[in-house]
Amino acid sequence: MTEHALPQPKGFLTAVSNIGIKDETEDFVCIYSEAPCVSAGVFTQSRFAGPSVLLSREHLAHGNNRAIVAISKNANVATGAEGERDARDIVAGIAQALAISPEHVLIASTGVIGRRYPMEKIRPHLASLRTHLHAADFAAAARGIMTTDLVPKLAVARVGDAVLLGIAKGVGMIEPNMATLLTFFMTDAAIEREQLDAVFRRVMDKSFNCLSVDTDTSTSDTALILANGLAGPVDLAAFEAALLDISLQLVKKIARDGEGATKMLEVTVEHARDDRQAKRVAKAIVNSPLVKTAAHGADPNWGRVVMAIGKCDDELDIDPAKVSVAFGDMEVYPRQLGEAALAELKTVLTRDEIVIRVSLGLAEGRATVWGCDLSAGYVKINGEYTT
Amino acid sequence: MTEHALPQPKGFLTAVSNIGIKDETEDFVCIYSEAPCVSAGVFTQSRFAGPSVLLSREHLAHGNNRAIVAISKNANVATGAEGERDARDIVAGIAQALAISPEHVLIASTGVIGRRYPMEKIRPHLASLRTHLHAADFAAAARGIMTTDLVPKLAVARVGDAVLLGIAKGVGMIEPNMATLLTFFMTDAAIEREQLDAVFRRVMDKSFNCLSVDTDTSTSDTALILANGLAGPVDLAAFEAALLDISLQLVKKIARDGEGATKMLEVTVEHARDDRQAKRVAKAIVNSPLVKTAAHGADPNWGRVVMAIGKCDDELDIDPAKVSVAFGDMEVYPRQLGEAALAELKTVLTRDEIVIRVSLGLAEGRATVWGCDLSAGYVKINGEYTT
Repeated sequence: MTEHALPQPKGFLTAVSNIGIKDETEDFVCIYSEAPCVSAGVFTQSRFAGPSVLLSREHLAHGNNRAIVAISKNANVATGAEGERDARDIVAGIAQALAISPEHVLIASTGVIGRRYPMEKIRPHLASLRTHLHAADFAAAARGIMTTDLVPKLAVARVGDAVLLGIAKGVGMIEPNMATLLTFFMTDAAIEREQLDAVFRRVMDKSFNCLSVDTDTSTSDTALILANGLAGPVDLAAFEAALLDISLQLVKKIARDGEGATKMLEVTVEHARDDRQAKRVAKAIVNSPLVKTAAHGADPNWGRVVMAIGKCDDELDIDPAKVSVAFGDMEVYPRQLGEAALAELKTVLTRDEIVIRVSLGLAEGRATVWGCDLSAGYVKINGEYTT
Repeated sequence: MTEHALPQPKGFLTAVSNIGIKDETEDFVCIYSEAPCVSAGVFTQSRFAGPSVLLSREHLAHGNNRAIVAISKNANVATGAEGERDARDIVAGIAQALAISPEHVLIASTGVIGRRYPMEKIRPHLASLRTHLHAADFAAAARGIMTTDLVPKLAVARVGDAVLLGIAKGVGMIEPNMATLLTFFMTDAAIEREQLDAVFRRVMDKSFNCLSVDTDTSTSDTALILANGLAGPVDLAAFEAALLDISLQLVKKIARDGEGATKMLEVTVEHARDDRQAKRVAKAIVNSPLVKTAAHGADPNWGRVVMAIGKCDDELDIDPAKVSVAFGDMEVYPRQLGEAALAELKTVLTRDEIVIRVSLGLAEGRATVWGCDLSAGYVKINGEYTT
């Protein structure tokens, strides 16, 4: 998708720059709506949520948010009272530059934990923010929030006269529990606050909360949506469908770009007792390091899927005699595979998208989750991250 | 420890051989007590537990077990009714060769899931078992149960006049939930069955159940103890202390030999609300792929420990203001580290044993768990396992 072809929601401006947080890449993004917005958001459940998350949660409760500032390459987490003051100073500086109230600003951060922001670099940039604000360039904004991401993640949809656009970054410390670090949606649709909130939570639960790169939940996960109403009202069901569609596009982009990943995994569990059990079993499979390494090496070791199902023993109703497992359309259990079938399975595993389907044979519960393989690249990226 | 220096419990014989399950290495171990034994055991909680586990659980309930047969390189799991019949045939063959009842035989298996045993190779071996049984060679038995292990794991202690000896294997698919695949203890101490069972469960819970190489719980975990009483009664508290001591020795040997591991991790969480919370937080740290890769690369990225604590949010009583984190004796949080301290931490992380200590500042709950770093070697071993 080229930047020129992008439909844009009306009334948004962006500022994207490098202020030298870590290196020469873009690390500062401000998204501003010229009109007042209705907003919704979900955040990490981590007990070590940083000041950016705490402050945004507080400001979201106020409503009428009009600006999102995102700083990448430093999460400003576990930095004590100083880190809290730094976050408040940044929000105050943004508010002053945009001539809005500090409560109307939302802030998000991502990067290393336990280091203070270089405020001496950030303060002068805030003072000159107005000169950096231009007609929205969301492709640049998607680049500006990247850390170990290799590609920017952006998706867009039309809903009636309105446009809905989302950007996201991933790709390590990713097993979101409410939202992923970070994803922002902008739309010019007109929607009531309560409706937007309900739609947003439902969609996040079916998309970003079904994603796991490495089982590690970030301290900074933040998902936000701003709706400025400039395109007028839209059909709510169509809006929810479009939001789910672009959320899943972003989720798959993150899974594909998971740290060190070479393949995307999609795991569907059907006929579980309920959706919760289906999701727990699907997550156990997509998170199993043995399933992930087998996918990486295209090793037709399907028994590891059975192992991962077997360790979900909380409810004692999973019965091996009722379970079936398939890779794509190829059943591997209870069917016993001969040498020819194992060779065929190896071919299926060389694809860059591996689909695993499990039936528990119990009832109608169902869930699909996304993840990626585990490679030596993940080990390398994360053994060298801060040094 | 040389084989000659090993004290041996009286009255045990062993047979260790290669019967060609997968390659030329030893894959068949039989341990036999000339005298009747008191026994105890714990097994995997996996819903996909294989016929070896199911059969041993049944035979352990009978009591009076006198023989353990262990087959490595094939787990005989998810092999349907044929796999069940194969396991019963092996036990019957062993019983016939030793002139004991089939219920007196315990069986354990480890290796690839979803492949049938080569019964045409196993049957003739069982028929000639008597000729392979010799004075106990537990070092050979420890080698015979290895799969991806690089070193055999054996520990021994004296308790009064008795000797207590344990062997173990297991270096991948290891987050035991009741026991690890596989560990066997032999003693000539005389102990009542109920007492042995209680002692064994307490010790397994504090040792093997505190170990995780890769969060994947095997379908075949089996821990067994045979006590033939030939050395007479012992002090029970001394016996329990010795059993814990050699269990922890075996656990640390497994952690150090974790697939692809170059370092052992030991994580202690203190001042938790209770021991359960302490263990959950300690496991979250030792299992975090980001903590494991940072340990591997000696990256002083201590913030990942804070992240792992933060994702344990089930009870909402962990308060960042009360938490402290140290690597060895070096506090990293809440203290904020400068460049010199980060360099010092990097040195600490180059050691081959990394000790992480966390205080939650809540109450007196406490747990220690063991694990290992995550390396490209793990990815390589498990991307190529069956092929």
